[in-house]
Amino acid sequence: MGSDRLLVIGAGPAGLEAARLAASLGSQVLVVEKRDVAGGMPIHENYAALTHGFRDAGEAMAELIGAVTSHPNVELRTSTEVTAVEGSVGEFTVTLSSGTGDDTVEAGAIILATGFQHFDPGRETQQYGYYEFPDVITLADAEAMLKAHNFVRPSNGEVPERVAFIQCVGSRDRQIGNEFCSKVCCGISSKQAIEVRQQVPDARVFIFYIDMRMYGYWENEIYWPAQEQYRVNYVKGIVTEILSKNGRLLVRGEDTTMGRPMEVPMDIVVLAVGMEPSLGTRKMAEMLGVATNKYGYIETPHGELDTVATSVPGVFAVGAATGPADLDDSISSAGAAAAKAVALLRGAEVTV
Amino acid sequence: MGSDRLLVIGAGPAGLEAARLAASLGSQVLVVEKRDVAGGMPIHENYAALTHGFRDAGEAMAELIGAVTSHPNVELRTSTEVTAVEGSVGEFTVTLSSGTGDDTVEAGAIILATGFQHFDPGRETQQYGYYEFPDVITLADAEAMLKAHNFVRPSNGEVPERVAFIQCVGSRDRQIGNEFCSKVCCGISSKQAIEVRQQVPDARVFIFYIDMRMYGYWENEIYWPAQEQYRVNYVKGIVTEILSKNGRLLVRGEDTTMGRPMEVPMDIVVLAVGMEPSLGTRKMAEMLGVATNKYGYIETPHGELDTVATSVPGVFAVGAATGPADLDDSISSAGAAAAKAVALLRGAEVTV
Repeated sequence: MGSDRLLVIGAGPAGLEAARLAASLGSQVLVVEKRDVAGGMPIHENYAALTHGFRDAGEAMAELIGAVTSHPNVELRTSTEVTAVEGSVGEFTVTLSSGTGDDTVEAGAIILATGFQHFDPGRETQQYGYYEFPDVITLADAEAMLKAHNFVRPSNGEVPERVAFIQCVGSRDRQIGNEFCSKVCCGISSKQAIEVRQQVPDARVFIFYIDMRMYGYWENEIYWPAQEQYRVNYVKGIVTEILSKNGRLLVRGEDTTMGRPMEVPMDIVVLAVGMEPSLGTRKMAEMLGVATNKYGYIETPHGELDTVATSVPGVFAVGAATGPADLDDSISSAGAAAAKAVALLRGAEVTV
Repeated sequence: MGSDRLLVIGAGPAGLEAARLAASLGSQVLVVEKRDVAGGMPIHENYAALTHGFRDAGEAMAELIGAVTSHPNVELRTSTEVTAVEGSVGEFTVTLSSGTGDDTVEAGAIILATGFQHFDPGRETQQYGYYEFPDVITLADAEAMLKAHNFVRPSNGEVPERVAFIQCVGSRDRQIGNEFCSKVCCGISSKQAIEVRQQVPDARVFIFYIDMRMYGYWENEIYWPAQEQYRVNYVKGIVTEILSKNGRLLVRGEDTTMGRPMEVPMDIVVLAVGMEPSLGTRKMAEMLGVATNKYGYIETPHGELDTVATSVPGVFAVGAATGPADLDDSISSAGAAAAKAVALLRGAEVTV
């Protein structure tokens, strides 16, 4: 009666880490990924270097994927979606759909590692001209350009002389309903600013921010090198609109330190788009009946002392499926969920 | 040959969680705590409510302690110190000292959960008058007063009319060598500001900050309620000195939003002291030979994809032993370390 298999939904960093550890603990693990490749956002969106360690993202993820796919206890199915779930803890029956048809599997526990998507900077506000001006890009676009060592103006292929990052696009914004801070964008923008300066040494790089949330070690690991070694210009300011003028972008707003209007020409503007729950996170939450918060992220209702249990026994959530998370958060929570899920599958009573 | 026992050093939240999960996974766990009670800082320093969930800290920790002490696989030894370690992964020999004498135990793996200590606000700088004025207290002092529902002026027992929090005391400070951000003080100060307003509804509460790092959900869970529901006054400003005048404290500095000097009377000033590695963290790191960073925290040299492995095989570090960490970080990393340590004890090869 019941299944001792663990189902992990999503093969990004958190899902892979959970699968790897659960397999190391002796459990049989099935990882289901709807995309055709594993690796999640770092692979899908061509991240250049990891934040905060500046390690090559492709190489790091390849190692993690390799550890999972080479483990005899793990089966990884890509291009596969979960289309139905029945049953409860210890005996979930899960329908999987792929190009080769439907399949049904049993699982005793489920880890949701379905992650986030980037805020669409064209949604509800056109102020930044993302869909109007090719040289207005997002953090994700910039990652891919930096990874390819091809950080040029999309409009004309020229090397930029002036690059601006604009923080808090789609975060800390009540008008669009995202009051939360996306946590990682300050660090990722600063990391990218360093990479731009490394790849395009003659470019001037500006970061327009409300405040820089360089928590913990990000302060000394990323922020100070950006300021001192790479001469990134941090400007406390609010950008109200982006225009096109004489073949360049014109960033308009207010320098709030000086308390004066600003109007500065730029060649590339990078919008530091925040996190939102992915479509997969929303769909899986609904299908499994796990409680979500008003933003659509999966709730972990037991508080600080249990970061991974959801409202449904036997279903755990990790990484950015539960809210804004950095890579360290995702990896740590994945490990915690692996431990709890495996203990549960072995009949241990795991309480908060 | 070798031992399948896990030794956890430190019985704070991270150590207890690691012990609980490792035991749930079937391992034999010995937890060693040098203090005479388990529970770590939340118990030792009488935390009132947890940040971010506002759950009663004593109650929450009692549950966690109960889960550990009632588990047949766990032995908890308080008032016991680790005084020597020999051997290596799979076969550490550990000398324990307590009031009843010395004892030697074998362990296959070790989890360091030795935590942090608060920055001493009298160290290297007298500007805040912590040792001079009884009404200048720290976040830790304030927790104990709030827990006792006795938030009064230490100098005379009067209910305060005006209370100020001063952020970044001992953090983000190059002069004292702590460039890092302590990560949690913004959230804890805001939580305490709410508690002060709940317990002393007539008090006005001010938070003097450089910037408020209310990352992730802390923005909507703590910051906005503090601003809107509890009318906490956030003042962007730098405090340069605290004086005593007419039986009150006088806070002097600059309101940086207005760009003007400020001089405001207060009844209680709470210094938001940052984190530093505890003495136990420093001692255990040295005894075990694990690499530390320049602040004395234990390094996790494998980067974002392994948040708990140290430079010494078989030795893991969790929570604030590795750097500034909130409670969620501590609990998640504890779970990850439990999974890795148990897998290691069972002979699994756990690589990054």
